Amino acid sequence: MHPNSFQQIKTRPNGSRSGILNTRRGALKTPFFMPVATRGAVKGLTPAEVRATGAQVLLANTYHLHIQPGEKLVKKLGGLHQFSGWDGPILTDSGGFQVFSLAKVRKITEEGVLFKNLLSGNEVLISPEKSMQIQFNLDSDIIMAFDDLTGLDPEARSRTTEAVERTHRWLVRCVAEYKKLTKNLKETEQPLLFGIIQGGLDKKLRAESLEFVQSQSVDGIAIGGLAVGEGRSEMYDMLKFLSLRYDPSRIRYLMGVGEPVDMRLAIENGIDMFDCVLPTRNGRHGSVWITGDKRLDLNNLKFAKDPSPIDKTCDCNTCKTGYSRAFLRHLFKVADPLAGRLTSVHNLRYLNRLCEQYQNKIGG
Amino acid sequence: MHPNSFQQIKTRPNGSRSGILNTRRGALKTPFFMPVATRGAVKGLTPAEVRATGAQVLLANTYHLHIQPGEKLVKKLGGLHQFSGWDGPILTDSGGFQVFSLAKVRKITEEGVLFKNLLSGNEVLISPEKSMQIQFNLDSDIIMAFDDLTGLDPEARSRTTEAVERTHRWLVRCVAEYKKLTKNLKETEQPLLFGIIQGGLDKKLRAESLEFVQSQSVDGIAIGGLAVGEGRSEMYDMLKFLSLRYDPSRIRYLMGVGEPVDMRLAIENGIDMFDCVLPTRNGRHGSVWITGDKRLDLNNLKFAKDPSPIDKTCDCNTCKTGYSRAFLRHLFKVADPLAGRLTSVHNLRYLNRLCEQYQNKIGG
Repeated sequence: MHPNSFQQIKTRPNGSRSGILNTRRGALKTPFFMPVATRGAVKGLTPAEVRATGAQVLLANTYHLHIQPGEKLVKKLGGLHQFSGWDGPILTDSGGFQVFSLAKVRKITEEGVLFKNLLSGNEVLISPEKSMQIQFNLDSDIIMAFDDLTGLDPEARSRTTEAVERTHRWLVRCVAEYKKLTKNLKETEQPLLFGIIQGGLDKKLRAESLEFVQSQSVDGIAIGGLAVGEGRSEMYDMLKFLSLRYDPSRIRYLMGVGEPVDMRLAIENGIDMFDCVLPTRNGRHGSVWITGDKRLDLNNLKFAKDPSPIDKTCDCNTCKTGYSRAFLRHLFKVADPLAGRLTSVHNLRYLNRLCEQYQNKIGG
Repeated sequence: MHPNSFQQIKTRPNGSRSGILNTRRGALKTPFFMPVATRGAVKGLTPAEVRATGAQVLLANTYHLHIQPGEKLVKKLGGLHQFSGWDGPILTDSGGFQVFSLAKVRKITEEGVLFKNLLSGNEVLISPEKSMQIQFNLDSDIIMAFDDLTGLDPEARSRTTEAVERTHRWLVRCVAEYKKLTKNLKETEQPLLFGIIQGGLDKKLRAESLEFVQSQSVDGIAIGGLAVGEGRSEMYDMLKFLSLRYDPSRIRYLMGVGEPVDMRLAIENGIDMFDCVLPTRNGRHGSVWITGDKRLDLNNLKFAKDPSPIDKTCDCNTCKTGYSRAFLRHLFKVADPLAGRLTSVHNLRYLNRLCEQYQNKIGG
């Protein structure tokens, strides 16, 4: 744990706070949103374009990069920053979520998760130690602990307690492995390590999980297992419940949330950071946010003759350059990949601007 | 015809020449290559990126834009430049080639070509007059005459003479329609009109066709019906044959050629302009040119660990930014559209630089 990794600068009556997260690759203003660069790139975009949306830090996926091109190759080529051309900080997830959602899981044991690599056909074990090693080889600046996930289906709920307890035991192993991997690095050269709390929609379990994770030597507290299909009000209720129990000296990360209305509510319940595929994936399908957190579907025929930009008040490069809704609709109609680029830029700017409003608000 | 549309500045012992093509949207240095923006955009690229490769002028496809979004919509939205964001000159093809290669042709008559619009199911007639009107509505700066095409298969060859004669009759109708459409425009506001010579691999027919087209009121001479599957030596032989017969005061355009070795030979046989989908289509499939007109396939496993750029001596934005062959191979492997963008930029720069070497050569 790095005592000065997070500096809280201000809290406001609405419950939001702003501050600075110090990483070895620079300081990040909070709250912030992380675009998802699953395989090292935000799909279709150059690092310079992503930077121009106001993004300060990217999230890359450990599972995907482990499968292709492999973390050893990335390390050999100078690490993920050198490989991808993004020179700002990078957070890597632990690989756990993708193993559960994408791979054919063979067995979950105390040791770790055994799954089948669908590309090579090989069986692969990811353990807490292995996850730390992969993220370290990728040269991640913010490393996530490897957790045991549960969904919300009845069978999954029945093992919530077991999963929380295993997540805690795995966190202890992650911290130990992290210390081993970083012992020869000066403190200013070490990546940060974040723990993840679980517990589904069970408040007692969540409170215990938060308390346990905050007792460990971790730089940040991530909330896993929300935004996985529960109702919005259930998520809000849990965020309010947790907001009273955080250690103020640590940064809080709500994983997988990127709907503007959810982000606002989360920020006003003390959340500092987010990641989500929503702005880029929705963008590539023609869905864009406009002022008021509303969505437009640019595939709609009513935009065919519309000469206005996506949003007249928007300061993203797509709107400022003057691309019309009519031209964007045409590009979607003919499946030109330029369409998804231009809307991804717009949507990322939308979320980064949302965060900037909380960073910059005077007084409050 | 605009007597000063082309100014020849220099001819060289190697047979090449350099000059200036004056269009209503600016002067273009010759020789030049036109990237293909089939539906208004060079696939995946912004106008600014295309411009940064050294491109001076784009080619857009009349057939595709007629089908979607329709030239009337484009006109309503201010023309193709305003619609697409490309503010330099645009050449439009006549639609003839695409009608033959993409649509279900119902009937070719003296009136024009009747085909089925596969999108709407409607039957559509494109006549010489209609082609002029569509290109005029798109606000094209260089309008191509509508020609009757033949391929090189035996059946097609048997109607070569008929097709050449019809092409000539249609050219007369194109010139008449063009005059009608432009009669209220000042000369400096008029688009240019190019005629197309046909004749397959028959030298006598080609000579007649060239003579006929040069007798008409057209600003440029386009060579159609080459690079359609004949052997390279047959194309070279025809280009040499034609090189002795051109009117030096008019620009010459070899349609559909974009292989560097072919472009060099064509330029050294008096050709001034080119278009081709090769740099962008090949690029999207991972094929890139490097010094010496050689090709690399970036999908190849041997590039997986290669930290060098595509070409160390290249001044394109992809190579200058430092994207490695290893990262590009990875992007192709995971089907990220960024891959095709970066290689399209490289390949376009390759061809534009090739042309610039002929534009700038001192002495010679």
